[in-house]
Formats: sequence, structure tokens, C-alpha cells
Amino acid sequence: MEYLRVSEAQRVVLESVALLNAESVGLEQSLGRVLAEDIRANRDLPPYDVSAMDGYAVRSADLVQVPVTLEVIEDIKAGDMPSKIVQPGQCARIMTGAPLPQGADAVMRVEDTQEISTQLIQVVTTIKDGHDVRPQGENMRNGDVVLSAGTEITPGVIGILATVKITQMQVYRRPRVAILSTGNELEAINAPVDMNKIPDSNTYALMAQVQALGITPALLGIARDDPLELEHYLKLGLEYDVLLVSGGTSVGVHDYVRPTIEKLGVSMKFWRVAMKPGHPLAFGVLHGMEKAPEVDAAPRCADAFVFGLPGNPVSSMVCFEEFVAPALRRMMGYARLFRRTVSARLAHPLKMRPGRTEFVRVQLTHDDAGYVASSTGTQSSGVLLSMARADGLLVMPSDSTGLAAGAQVTVQLLDGTAYQHEMNIRE
Amino acid sequence: MEYLRVSEAQRVVLESVALLNAESVGLEQSLGRVLAEDIRANRDLPPYDVSAMDGYAVRSADLVQVPVTLEVIEDIKAGDMPSKIVQPGQCARIMTGAPLPQGADAVMRVEDTQEISTQLIQVVTTIKDGHDVRPQGENMRNGDVVLSAGTEITPGVIGILATVKITQMQVYRRPRVAILSTGNELEAINAPVDMNKIPDSNTYALMAQVQALGITPALLGIARDDPLELEHYLKLGLEYDVLLVSGGTSVGVHDYVRPTIEKLGVSMKFWRVAMKPGHPLAFGVLHGMEKAPEVDAAPRCADAFVFGLPGNPVSSMVCFEEFVAPALRRMMGYARLFRRTVSARLAHPLKMRPGRTEFVRVQLTHDDAGYVASSTGTQSSGVLLSMARADGLLVMPSDSTGLAAGAQVTVQLLDGTAYQHEMNIRE
Repeated sequence: MEYLRVSEAQRVVLESVALLNAESVGLEQSLGRVLAEDIRANRDLPPYDVSAMDGYAVRSADLVQVPVTLEVIEDIKAGDMPSKIVQPGQCARIMTGAPLPQGADAVMRVEDTQEISTQLIQVVTTIKDGHDVRPQGENMRNGDVVLSAGTEITPGVIGILATVKITQMQVYRRPRVAILSTGNELEAINAPVDMNKIPDSNTYALMAQVQALGITPALLGIARDDPLELEHYLKLGLEYDVLLVSGGTSVGVHDYVRPTIEKLGVSMKFWRVAMKPGHPLAFGVLHGMEKAPEVDAAPRCADAFVFGLPGNPVSSMVCFEEFVAPALRRMMGYARLFRRTVSARLAHPLKMRPGRTEFVRVQLTHDDAGYVASSTGTQSSGVLLSMARADGLLVMPSDSTGLAAGAQVTVQLLDGTAYQHEMNIRE
Repeated sequence: MEYLRVSEAQRVVLESVALLNAESVGLEQSLGRVLAEDIRANRDLPPYDVSAMDGYAVRSADLVQVPVTLEVIEDIKAGDMPSKIVQPGQCARIMTGAPLPQGADAVMRVEDTQEISTQLIQVVTTIKDGHDVRPQGENMRNGDVVLSAGTEITPGVIGILATVKITQMQVYRRPRVAILSTGNELEAINAPVDMNKIPDSNTYALMAQVQALGITPALLGIARDDPLELEHYLKLGLEYDVLLVSGGTSVGVHDYVRPTIEKLGVSMKFWRVAMKPGHPLAFGVLHGMEKAPEVDAAPRCADAFVFGLPGNPVSSMVCFEEFVAPALRRMMGYARLFRRTVSARLAHPLKMRPGRTEFVRVQLTHDDAGYVASSTGTQSSGVLLSMARADGLLVMPSDSTGLAAGAQVTVQLLDGTAYQHEMNIRE
């Protein structure tokens, strides 16, 4: 089987997965989810012309020639309705958000006036009709769609949901994700230290990557290199929407994952991707029709998806970022699937053997000219510290033989949850 | 009182707040927290030289002249120990992560060999001593500090914690945050629609901004413009580490927040910041010594901090980003306090009245030359949709009178949780 390019493999994955069904959540639990319904305004906002400032509601025509002295006819607090009409030579004290009284057409901010007495103010500047007035319906008009299905629920969106008084809403549900590590060499986190074993870090690093997407994964533990044990665990994992298996998918003679997984009905889409760190990386689909009846009973989507991730900790994490995260995000309805990229200058030369797209762990600093990227040190795929220290992944195109210091590069930010619509890398 | 510059106000806030005490969390709950203790390696990793690939452990001296045929003397799986010494003309089949047998000094990947029989392989390429071998202790050495206090717990860090088998750790605790809205004009989310009122969106937008930092805030509700009611609510709020009050802090005659808060012993540090949207923005400290005994009993830090945020939804959110979020992050031990910035080109001209640092809500797109920023539309501080649509805040320096299309600008990313060490803006 050929090595797929990163973008080809990504396309295969993203074309395979589908949007999940919707579920209802409360406003206080909705941050970070994606709306599965349109949200409409339930009134005009503001419901009438209101003041945008603390100040005086004035007739702009009175201020053509300044200074001018105006009579203060009433106080209008936010939440009050005006009781008087502002006549020529008059004004009303008004608070931010309070309705503009009839007759007035602008607001003079309190800082720009001088109080002569409680009933009189002097105005020295001129303002135009509509100044510091927020017109009726400026924010939203009754019945308009203010948020459409597919909108990611950010703090600003939550402000709008509260504005239209939505306390419960439909969002796309999160995939159920299971994580399985494989290999006789692995030592469970609660097992005593055995110098001949390797602690299982992949289960937890993957757990955290899944958690960072808002999903609480099920940790299935470690399956030994034994066909029956593997079959048991893989069967268990295939009852989830997505199964992440780390280790055991390479071409070595002791890898039982591939035959076992195919025996269970999973149709493998690819096994190798031309990236570093990364391969072997496998992806397969268990179609709904092929599921056993008892499996059908589980509340999961029609198909189950299996990612066979490399056993090396860094490789596993990088493959998660490039393939699994976009897939999980698509299933949850996000339009932005890919890590946000920034442009940076390389701090030092970087050698490379062409043939595979390389993801180099870098730290980012900032100088007057912008971001500067420098390698976090050893790029060995076994050295997890290099991943922990990284601010981002510098993407080296597969045809590159290396870069000089100062070269302009593209870095995918590994920060929390910054995503964008397009991948914007040259692979 | 003078208007403070953004950076001055930020300095006052950050110098006032202090790191909170530590608490213990489990590994599965630790993502996004900050370590309050150093973490040491509990063994060498790898514990001996291991193979970085699936392939054959070879003596590099055997491969000076190729092609060469080698005898396969045993199979070493990951988790197994080698039982034989590799002699000249011999090799051992070896899995990724398995210990290198004595005699061998390099690994030839399986893809680069040809199997002649189960006991014989042919090698056609030459490799050097150490090729595809991960030396003992490459990842970490027993006893070394692998993670120091102050490290933010990312997925990569969780991988390292799992590697050294830390299932419980000390992290800085999260501040207890209370949110209060004030104003007679506000309508609670569960109240019937009243055309003369404004729905309270600030409580929920602020809630979500606090949640985005990993903190679950207490929502105190709405205090009416009444000194006694305000005092009751403010007293309640001051039992938390941080109280966010929106509305009521401007210079209008109906604002009771300032006198009431000062009556409760809060020392106000500033009231006005030269920013747009944003002012009025107030910040005060209730020092521990001034606390009433019954308040002392509450599990909060020595001082309580009050932010008086503008009533306008957008202003309140922008002030949160620029002042409250850095303060909360400092209290939780983060080194990165400020929103990550990117450089972008302005898509259209932007007018500005100099005097205040302006935060313009923008959307970011990407072309071949990098990011392009365009305004989300009306920049009225009442229009929350402009915030919901924004990818970032374009920072216009206070001395600017405007920018032409194509001008290079700095944009603070509003995405999830991307933060940096320095603010990197010109104010």
C-alpha cells in the first residue's frame, strides 16, 4: 500500500465521518458546543431609541450655536420611561440604556456639560442628530435569525442567547470516544515500576487531547499482544463512536491489531501517511450495517471509526492533532477543524530529508518583526518533553531539503482551542 | 480622576492580585491547571537502549559493504528481554521500543530489508552506529526534575505525568468568582418579556468568559438601583475571591455602586481607563485585614478583588478580556496572561478619534500573504453580535487617527485559550 499525503489522508477521514445527532443542553452548559438549530430574536433590541451614554437627551437643533444653556426637565434612569416631551431649550438627564424622550434626538455626554444648577446645564459643544443614540432594533429585530445552526457557542454567543432568553437549546452531541493502548511492553499507571516495561503515557496524553475538545473519553486500558485479548478489547472499543488504538499498527510481525480489527468487520481506509513523526497511522470504518445486533443497541452513530495511532508518544499526539481532532470536530458540527496557523521566522537552520511532511515541535517567541520559531530540542518521536514544551508544530513541506535561519515558516498553534477553517499549510 | 492608560491599569491589577494556594487534583482532572510542585522522573527512560523502529538489530560494522546476508538469531518483542548476543553476520528481529540486544548497535528498518527465509535476510543499505536506536535516558533520567512548578498542564504534560506515574498532584486552586449585574432596566432570564426592560446578557456572557478559564462562577443575579439592595448583594459578592459587577459604575447620578462598595471597605484603585469600548472600568481591593470575622471564615484568599465593568455588553466583555482574564490567570499560576496576537493586514480603511486605545472587533481571513482583518460591522458597544462574530480584537493605538486599507495591524485572538507571555500591543 502506498503512503498517502497528509491532505489526502485527511480528506479520506473527513469524508468518512458525519455530523452527529442533536441533544438539548442548558445555557450554563453550552459553552464550546455547536448550535443545531437557528435562534430567532424575541423582540426589537433596543425596543426603542435609547441613550448610549450617561448624559443629557437634547435637541441637536438647539446646539447649532454654543455655548447654550438648557433647562433640565426630568431624570430618566435606565428602566424608566420618559414622562415629558423635550421642548426647544430643554433637555433631560438620561442614563445609558434609558429611552430617549420625545423631542430629543441626540445625547450629550455628561463629561461635556457643566452643571449650573440642578435645573440648568451649559453645553459648549455641538453634536449631530442621532449622536450617542442607539436606534430601536440596532442589535436585533424581532423574528430575525440572530444565530444560525452551526454557530460555535462562544461567550459572545452566550450573551446573545441570554439576550433572546434561550435557557435550553439543541446542540450537536459529542462523540463517545474510547482509548486503547496495546503492547506487552506497556506498564499500567497503577502497576509497580518494572524496569523492563514502558509506562503507558499514550492513554493519558490522548485522554487529555480528547478532553481539550470537550469530550470525556472512556479509557479501556492496555491490551496485550494476544489475538484473543486484542479482539476482546477492540470489540469493546467498537461500541463507541470513535476508537483510538495506539501502538500495534505497524508492519512488524507481532502486530495483531490489523488482522483482528479487519476480522471484526472494520474496513480499513489507509495504513500509511507520508508524515514525520506519524506513520504508521491507520484509519478504518465499521459500517452500521455490519454491526452485530447487540452492538446496535448502544447509543452511537451509524458508523464507528477506528484510528490506529503510532505507539510513539509524540507520533501519537501529532497524528491526533492532524487527523483525529478535525474528525471529532466535524462530528460535533464545528466549521473550524484545523489548528490556527501563524507565520514565523526560523531561529536556526533546519535540516530535512525530503519525502514526508514533517511536523517539527517549536517554541514561539516574539520580536518587533513578529514570531520567531525555534525547535524544542530533540525531534525524536520518543521524547514527549519536546511535545510538552512546544507552542506549535512547524510544518516542513515534503519536498523540502531544509531551511536556513530566518526562513519564513508556518506554525500550527498547539494552544488550547484556536482553530481555523482551512489548514493553510504547504505539505 | 485621570484616565489610566490600558497598560497602567493592567499593571495596577496584576500587582494587586496574588497566586492562590495549592490543592490536590487527580491526573484525569488536571488538564489546563498549573503545577504547584516540581515533578521528578522515577527511572531512566528508556531504561536501556531501545529500537526506534520495527526492524532488525544489526552490527553497523557488518554493513560497510552491501548487499550482505545476515542470520536472524531471535525475535525481540517490545516488553521482552533479548536472550542472545548478536555476533558478526547475525541480527535479531526487533520491535519498536524493544531493548537492543548485546552486540547490536543500530536498527535497520524492516522496509529496507528483504526476507530470504525465516532465518535469513538481505540488507542492501548501509547505516551508522546508533541509527534508529533511542539511547538509555534519552527521554528522562531518574531523579531529574521533568516538570517544574508553574508548568501549565497541557496534553503533552499529562503524557509526562503519566510516564512518571503521577496520579495525584498539587496545582494552584482556581479563584472563586461571583458575577453580579446591576440596574433597574435589567430583565432576568427567567422573567417574562417586558418591552421596557433590557434582557440581562452580561451575567451569562461573563459566566462564559469565566468558564472558558476553567472556573465555574457563582451567578448572584441582578441588584436593583437601591443602596440597601446593592449593599446586600455586594457584601455577598465580597465573600468570593473575585467579584465582577457589571453596570452602575459610571459617573451618572444614579450610580450607587461606587459609594456602596467603598462603604464596605473596598479600596478603589482606579475608575477610568482610556480605552474604547471599555470605560467606565473600576478596580478595587478589599484587604484581608478589613474583613469582618464571619467573612474570614469563608475559604477565600486574603484579599478580595472587585471589578466594576461597564453595563454595555461589548464593553463588559472587552474589559474582561483585557483586565479580568489576566488577573484570574495570574491567580491560578499561569505565566501566559495575555491573548495571543497575530499580525494582519487591514481589509478596509478604519477611522479613529485619537485619545483612547480602541479595540475593534474583527474577523480574520487568510490569503497567500497572511491574515486579513475586517471589521465585524457596527462597533457600537451595545451590539453584542459584533462580539459573537469576532475572531479577534484589532488594537488601535491611542494616538492613531485612522488606518488605510492594507495597513499592518495587531489582532488579539479571541479563540478559546490561546495566551502569550507579553501583551505585544502598541496602546
